[in-house]
Amino acid sequence: MAKFKLDEVDHQILDMLIENTRTPFTDIAKKLLISAGTVHVRVKKMEEAGIITGSSLTLDYGKLGYSFIAYVGVYINKTSQTTFVLERIAQIPFVTVAHVTTGKFNIFCKIRARDTNHAKNVIFLLDDIDGVYRTETMISLEESINDKKRLMHSIFQDLV
Amino acid sequence: MAKFKLDEVDHQILDMLIENTRTPFTDIAKKLLISAGTVHVRVKKMEEAGIITGSSLTLDYGKLGYSFIAYVGVYINKTSQTTFVLERIAQIPFVTVAHVTTGKFNIFCKIRARDTNHAKNVIFLLDDIDGVYRTETMISLEESINDKKRLMHSIFQDLV
Amino acid sequence: MAKFKLDEVDHQILDMLIENTRTPFTDIAKKLLISAGTVHVRVKKMEEAGIITGSSLTLDYGKLGYSFIAYVGVYINKTSQTTFVLERIAQIPFVTVAHVTTGKFNIFCKIRARDTNHAKNVIFLLDDIDGVYRTETMISLEESINDKKRLMHSIFQDLV
Amino acid sequence: MAKFKLDEVDHQILDMLIENTRTPFTDIAKKLLISAGTVHVRVKKMEEAGIITGSSLTLDYGKLGYSFIAYVGVYINKTSQTTFVLERIAQIPFVTVAHVTTGKFNIFCKIRARDTNHAKNVIFLLDDIDGVYRTETMISLEESINDKKRLMHSIFQDLV
Amino acid sequence: MAKFKLDEVDHQILDMLIENTRTPFTDIAKKLLISAGTVHVRVKKMEEAGIITGSSLTLDYGKLGYSFIAYVGVYINKTSQTTFVLERIAQIPFVTVAHVTTGKFNIFCKIRARDTNHAKNVIFLLDDIDGVYRTETMISLEESINDKKRLMHSIFQDLV
Amino acid sequence: MAKFKLDEVDHQILDMLIENTRTPFTDIAKKLLISAGTVHVRVKKMEEAGIITGSSLTLDYGKLGYSFIAYVGVYINKTSQTTFVLERIAQIPFVTVAHVTTGKFNIFCKIRARDTNHAKNVIFLLDDIDGVYRTETMISLEESINDKKRLMHSIFQDLV
Amino acid sequence: MAKFKLDEVDHQILDMLIENTRTPFTDIAKKLLISAGTVHVRVKKMEEAGIITGSSLTLDYGKLGYSFIAYVGVYINKTSQTTFVLERIAQIPFVTVAHVTTGKFNIFCKIRARDTNHAKNVIFLLDDIDGVYRTETMISLEESINDKKRLMHSIFQDLV
Amino acid sequence: MAKFKLDEVDHQILDMLIENTRTPFTDIAKKLLISAGTVHVRVKKMEEAGIITGSSLTLDYGKLGYSFIAYVGVYINKTSQTTFVLERIAQIPFVTVAHVTTGKFNIFCKIRARDTNHAKNVIFLLDDIDGVYRTETMISLEESINDKKRLMHSIFQDLV
Repeated sequence: MAKFKLDEVDHQILDMLIENTRTPFTDIAKKLLISAGTVHVRVKKMEEAGIITGSSLTLDYGKLGYSFIAYVGVYINKTSQTTFVLERIAQIPFVTVAHVTTGKFNIFCKIRARDTNHAKNVIFLLDDIDGVYRTETMISLEESINDKKRLMHSIFQDLV
Repeated sequence: MAKFKLDEVDHQILDMLIENTRTPFTDIAKKLLISAGTVHVRVKKMEEAGIITGSSLTLDYGKLGYSFIAYVGVYINKTSQTTFVLERIAQIPFVTVAHVTTGKFNIFCKIRARDTNHAKNVIFLLDDIDGVYRTETMISLEESINDKKRLMHSIFQDLV
Repeated sequence: MAKFKLDEVDHQILDMLIENTRTPFTDIAKKLLISAGTVHVRVKKMEEAGIITGSSLTLDYGKLGYSFIAYVGVYINKTSQTTFVLERIAQIPFVTVAHVTTGKFNIFCKIRARDTNHAKNVIFLLDDIDGVYRTETMISLEESINDKKRLMHSIFQDLV
Repeated sequence: MAKFKLDEVDHQILDMLIENTRTPFTDIAKKLLISAGTVHVRVKKMEEAGIITGSSLTLDYGKLGYSFIAYVGVYINKTSQTTFVLERIAQIPFVTVAHVTTGKFNIFCKIRARDTNHAKNVIFLLDDIDGVYRTETMISLEESINDKKRLMHSIFQDLV
Repeated sequence: MAKFKLDEVDHQILDMLIENTRTPFTDIAKKLLISAGTVHVRVKKMEEAGIITGSSLTLDYGKLGYSFIAYVGVYINKTSQTTFVLERIAQIPFVTVAHVTTGKFNIFCKIRARDTNHAKNVIFLLDDIDGVYRTETMISLEESINDKKRLMHSIFQDLV
Repeated sequence: MAKFKLDEVDHQILDMLIENTRTPFTDIAKKLLISAGTVHVRVKKMEEAGIITGSSLTLDYGKLGYSFIAYVGVYINKTSQTTFVLERIAQIPFVTVAHVTTGKFNIFCKIRARDTNHAKNVIFLLDDIDGVYRTETMISLEESINDKKRLMHSIFQDLV
Repeated sequence: MAKFKLDEVDHQILDMLIENTRTPFTDIAKKLLISAGTVHVRVKKMEEAGIITGSSLTLDYGKLGYSFIAYVGVYINKTSQTTFVLERIAQIPFVTVAHVTTGKFNIFCKIRARDTNHAKNVIFLLDDIDGVYRTETMISLEESINDKKRLMHSIFQDLV
Repeated sequence: MAKFKLDEVDHQILDMLIENTRTPFTDIAKKLLISAGTVHVRVKKMEEAGIITGSSLTLDYGKLGYSFIAYVGVYINKTSQTTFVLERIAQIPFVTVAHVTTGKFNIFCKIRARDTNHAKNVIFLLDDIDGVYRTETMISLEESINDKKRLMHSIFQDLV
């Protein structure tokens, strides 16, 4: 797949928005010595190209009472059920990430819960989906890194 | 730990910002029939309470040439080295998530890379950190869910 | 969940009862320079608060011919059967502990038996419960520590 | 090893003390139509024979803020270090049970902690003992059975 | 279970028969300075006590074209099928040993075969028994020790 | 490797000796309608060809107080130590069988012991051999088959 | 099975053809100082003996867009289905190698695919074969050696 | 990486050469109704583009006395040793394939040997390489598929 070509200006715009998505375009324009209109056009272009697909708030889940994180590996009976199982998983809001994977698991999920007991209930929801015959859970004792900014900076340096 | 109490207004503000972090406060104010100043105060309060810790762009990594995702379990020699190893891992931008975990691994990472060969290089960087004596990799064949919005909505309903 | 607040007197009473559950309240009263009535009231209060839920004899199982200890991991077909399986496990007196667990097993049990042959029969009882499709056994070669007193002392120091 | 022979009276005395260790001997005597002195003599005899080795309070650890239970398998470098490692483990009050086992682990422990973070610290204490090169943790989602009374009743019926 | 008491003479008789089962009783008698009749009586007594249950030729399986040895772990669906499965296994002459075991396997077998292809056929016979749902094979590269004489000598020294 | 050719007479002689190693040659001769000398010559020939390498008593280990059987998988640091480790294992009389194997273990042993505690000591002896860094034990709950006669009969039918 | 005897001339012919299958027989003849007819006769003889069974082009799969290599272990329900499953696997052109194996897998395959997504589809084809209940995938990060020439040279030296 | 574009003629030439590498170009030319020179040019072009990298004889290893196939997973101490270990592996002619892999092994090899004993020696060679601390072997009971022709045909259809 051909890579979208970002130039130095795109790169600097993204760099600022990554640090703070709400940075006003006029601030970006001033810093880069371009017009706010140009910032607007560039961002629009990156959105239309599907590079920027949205923005999200970063919340402190611990403060919100959701400090329990676990990874759950899911085994399913037949891979023809994968799509069906994923649809059912998507109905459990406490599953924030799910991947079809190689290795021992068919699907690998990340869940956030309030505590051990809540996690048990979420895991049981996964276990009870038709086609799932086993799950295996690995509990996070500490979320040490959760940061895509370093990756994004690295990608921009690589792309320019 | 005492949970921060969010009221219905906070909840609705967050709901709108979660959908689009860049939504102007005036739009939010109009929709909720409150003043833009109130929106501003509420957001500020949630930032000061540490509930909102920032915002991030959602980029399409595939479009940027980084479609390869893998989970890497890291075994370390002595847990007293955990902090040191995590500091070294934090210097590898392609590791976007890292957890100290129970179960067979000491540290569990998520990496994004360009392709198989790039992934190999990233895994080798992990393997070569002092104190790491083995890694085990599980490759994602498809990222089916990566969405914290459902969780956030669920939390707000739970909190109100 | 709010922790029940124990004061220094409660702590000292528990400390003595932990060493010997049958210590007469008059002995405790004399040692703590309080009235036996106070001891009685405090113990009653801790019972009503559900802190003290009972007392048990410590027997030497080896002397009673039950020196064989094993841990048995139980896999069940669907977690919706967990409650049913636990009820059936509860009917086997040789299972003294059972936990719903994360990781590879659904339920994890501790059993005490007379010898290898008796253990085999107990494991077969577990294996034959409807909904159980496999068990995996780890045999204890020596029970080196089985003592909650150190924990209780630690908790009291922590709570005061 | 020869089993100690308990007669029907011993059995009934134990049965009552197991239900409540603090049952007064006079109550037991009245129920069994024997003298309180006989109860006293029988209990003493069972203590001297090492059958009864003590008594312990049953506390609700959840109420005390210690609701987190985990099983930790410990691998050690050389079995000649087993005694040394067990001595060090015995200094960690949050380890309530430890067994030398067959199977994949050298030592298998049960720990009680306040929460995920506290559990991490306890596991790190185990990991940092000299001679320990790895631990593997399985977290309890629910303690469904913890009851030796059924076993004791079963033993007494078996012995008589 | 009470151990049968062997005296020094029994021990010396067994020691000689273990080295060579066909040693004439007159040779044993001469060496031990007892009568051949005594040897006969002692051996008979040990046979009647069930200590000696038979004798077997030691053949060189490699010379007979059966040099391929493997251990096969057998998983069965329900332990209630164990007896049935063992009866079926007993009809496969290439299985020389079978144990009901703890750990991951339900039954653990030793097989001798002519070569890789023959071993495959024997393993397939095991796999096709009703109630067996998986087998796992570990192949011997060299039979380094197969000798119970050292054990027997050790037992006799221990018993005397 | 060329197989030694046994004829029908050899086969019938072996068949009788396998059932009872002490069967007098005259009995065999009478049954097969040949001379005792012929039996003697044939047995001698099979001994010289290395087909018959000896004979052993079959003892009831349970009756001798050795009813505990376990399989122990041994991991060694470097395969160059295999010969050294095997020599050390050969000095432990309670190890009756040892194989160099494929799969997860380097060496796989069968041990016989008196009970759980004795087994622990034997396993510790294995663990303490230089070059051994781990062992893993699987305990036999029941020795269901231990019989090479079926194999031998099968081989003879195959060879003729 | 008796080995076919190759002489020094056969060996040298094979050595040259192994380096380049298209080497004209006249070139081989000139180099070995024999007639082209002899080369022809020898090659024909080795073909008739089934030693040479064909020849194949070595293509660069990466250049052809097939750089993704994975090993897939296949578990099947009953070994009686092995032949059926292999026939189905043979219909998937992306499976280039398949073995019936000992150890944890029943069948072990090597696949070549275009990329992660294509590999997922190939794995799903395997998973969906009747009788297959699980697969486990190991992805190649680099094909470091793929060369049978060294083996062939070694065999020829061994055979001569 | 841009794919080399093969046209229908290239495809048909490869199709014929794949079936038999030694097919004379004149035969190919006649069948495709083009000149032998064109065949020559096309093949040359594909060789220069690195699509065709050579050709190899297909030999029957069983007939040559090498019917024993095993897969060996290699664990190495530090991935910085990977290149060194691969160089040493490349000196063992019985290793025909080696991959750097994800999952539990660092390097995964395919070996061909004469028999069990020879395989043991080859595995020991791998185990004794500096930096290798363990290997794990899976033995092939039957090579059911080893055929890249189906893949090549599939690729050509895909490319045209």
